[in-house]
Amino acid sequence: MPPLPPGSTIGILGGGQLGRMLALAAARLGFKCHVYNDVPGPACDVAAAATLGGFDDLQKLEAFAGAVDVVTYEFENVPVAAAAAVEGIVPVRPGLKALQVSQDRLAEKRFVSGLGLPVAPFASIEDAQDLEAAFRTVTFPAILKTRRMGYDGKGQTRVANAAELAAKLAEIASPPATLEAVVDFTCEVSVVLVRGLDGMTRFYDIPVNRHEGGILRTSTVPCALPGAHQERARDIAQALAAALDYVGVLAVEMFYTSDADRPLIVNEFAPRVHNSGHWTIDACAVSQFENHVRAVAGWPLGPTERHSDAVMQNLIGADVEDWARLAAEPGACLHLYGKGEARPGRKMGHATWLAPRTGRP
Amino acid sequence: MPPLPPGSTIGILGGGQLGRMLALAAARLGFKCHVYNDVPGPACDVAAAATLGGFDDLQKLEAFAGAVDVVTYEFENVPVAAAAAVEGIVPVRPGLKALQVSQDRLAEKRFVSGLGLPVAPFASIEDAQDLEAAFRTVTFPAILKTRRMGYDGKGQTRVANAAELAAKLAEIASPPATLEAVVDFTCEVSVVLVRGLDGMTRFYDIPVNRHEGGILRTSTVPCALPGAHQERARDIAQALAAALDYVGVLAVEMFYTSDADRPLIVNEFAPRVHNSGHWTIDACAVSQFENHVRAVAGWPLGPTERHSDAVMQNLIGADVEDWARLAAEPGACLHLYGKGEARPGRKMGHATWLAPRTGRP
Repeated sequence: MPPLPPGSTIGILGGGQLGRMLALAAARLGFKCHVYNDVPGPACDVAAAATLGGFDDLQKLEAFAGAVDVVTYEFENVPVAAAAAVEGIVPVRPGLKALQVSQDRLAEKRFVSGLGLPVAPFASIEDAQDLEAAFRTVTFPAILKTRRMGYDGKGQTRVANAAELAAKLAEIASPPATLEAVVDFTCEVSVVLVRGLDGMTRFYDIPVNRHEGGILRTSTVPCALPGAHQERARDIAQALAAALDYVGVLAVEMFYTSDADRPLIVNEFAPRVHNSGHWTIDACAVSQFENHVRAVAGWPLGPTERHSDAVMQNLIGADVEDWARLAAEPGACLHLYGKGEARPGRKMGHATWLAPRTGRP
Repeated sequence: MPPLPPGSTIGILGGGQLGRMLALAAARLGFKCHVYNDVPGPACDVAAAATLGGFDDLQKLEAFAGAVDVVTYEFENVPVAAAAAVEGIVPVRPGLKALQVSQDRLAEKRFVSGLGLPVAPFASIEDAQDLEAAFRTVTFPAILKTRRMGYDGKGQTRVANAAELAAKLAEIASPPATLEAVVDFTCEVSVVLVRGLDGMTRFYDIPVNRHEGGILRTSTVPCALPGAHQERARDIAQALAAALDYVGVLAVEMFYTSDADRPLIVNEFAPRVHNSGHWTIDACAVSQFENHVRAVAGWPLGPTERHSDAVMQNLIGADVEDWARLAAEPGACLHLYGKGEARPGRKMGHATWLAPRTGRP
């Protein structure tokens, strides 16, 4: 299939900041964007067109699909039925499989471990009957997670022992859930890769990620992992992408441990551009957003090397009130998402500090 | 006056590629853009709002001004009356003076030379009566230019002698005109500076510019000018900006000559972001577009240092058909403007090649 020519329209399911940064990158390449979302969002302000409609409104979704040349999504909780309705009319990239697997934590864990890739011990908990079996697989402390609709630390809670688990299980809104062992990690890293329509895969440098309250706080490149372990991390992510027959940017979050035999444990993956790749806008010639657009449009991938070292920091909630100081700070590249209310926990923007590139670790 | 907060709306007079790249940069900072243009243009596709209206439709212009927080322009041929109508309602930055002076080649030459800055010998020609006086000031070969609506080599022609001049003068559509001596130059350079609301001024590195058929073909940084001459070029541009009480990005095109006493001659200036500054998108943390938006919004200016060396090449007319090859070329940052028809001479996009930064020359 030939690449989509400039001037074509890329449909985006979802209207948040990831959609906004995708639309800005698509515009650079001469594409138009058409955003579909259930509420007005920051992506709508930079798109050539926007449709407001529910993700269960198949008629509106089909009209949207009929008006665009290819569709991608900017969040992994797009209902699979919505994506399927669109896929009947235009290609959806990355495909439905990545969506299906990643929006169910149990399916995700099974998929990753089924490929022989390292994950933390986990167990499915449909109801209280499953607890005993779970205790045989997962030791405490553990993390109880809802299977669906989890992001930014939502839908998960740490449990210290069996009694606490039983209590929390009664509390959480939407079983079924998974129970996962807590991994004793040195740091968290992520592999952000882009895979083209032809299967060619390129990797951005691996950032080390620091979370606070379940939300990404900073991503820093380069990370200090030994080269062999970075290569292992890339291999894991590539195997996952290949198994999903993936097209676009894929982010795989991993724990880095001090266990020499098993230094990397897959935590979760996101079938989309990822917060831990935002530094690529300022530190690479071609950002994760542009490379996602290139892949989705069937274009050749752009280079993924960094020209500068970078530290990306999220502006969460009231952090954004600091914009004037950040704008004045030399070397800070400021990105604001154009969202109205700075609610606690809401990602309002980010800043990336660049420094001359050091040697790759 | 406090800086405009994110979420404010920036009005842009003009809807071409410069407006598009301004809107993309404004979006990064959380601003909305509202484009005003007489025809649909590439800027409209990435703006939150667009008004289609003539530049003589003062009622529409006033409604536009009432809907935005500040106005800038992306081409210097915006009628002064249009800008004045807007200025009655919201600030217009850069101001009307820069517009007024730069859209009349004679006024521009007089303004620059009136500041004691070096320009080529020039003369005003209102009609054939002025020829004799012109011959005393300007020697042949010379360039005959219409006073208004010139860009990309349009509205100017080289004349070898008096007979040719008389013939061309009869030909050109819209006298009055200027006659300017041809400058024997080594190369052409431009100073792209940004001046904030408080008068603070920063300079991007000076590119050497190569034109073909009157249209910019490439801009390259660093240029090979000695440091003292670069400083002289910056001083000239800064004097011009200060005299215009300028706010935003100003580009001053200069000839670089082998005359040690007069190495730099101002050719013309553009009161806007400039084609010879497009490389800053990819080679600087903060591009000329973002810095223009910052200045216009009363924000602190961003840094102007380059992190990479760069060569920018325009894609003119059918050049753009080469997009697939350029997209595959490692190190090329591709920018397409989303214009429909690739007419000869039309700027359709540009590509910037980055290389690790060398020492400043």
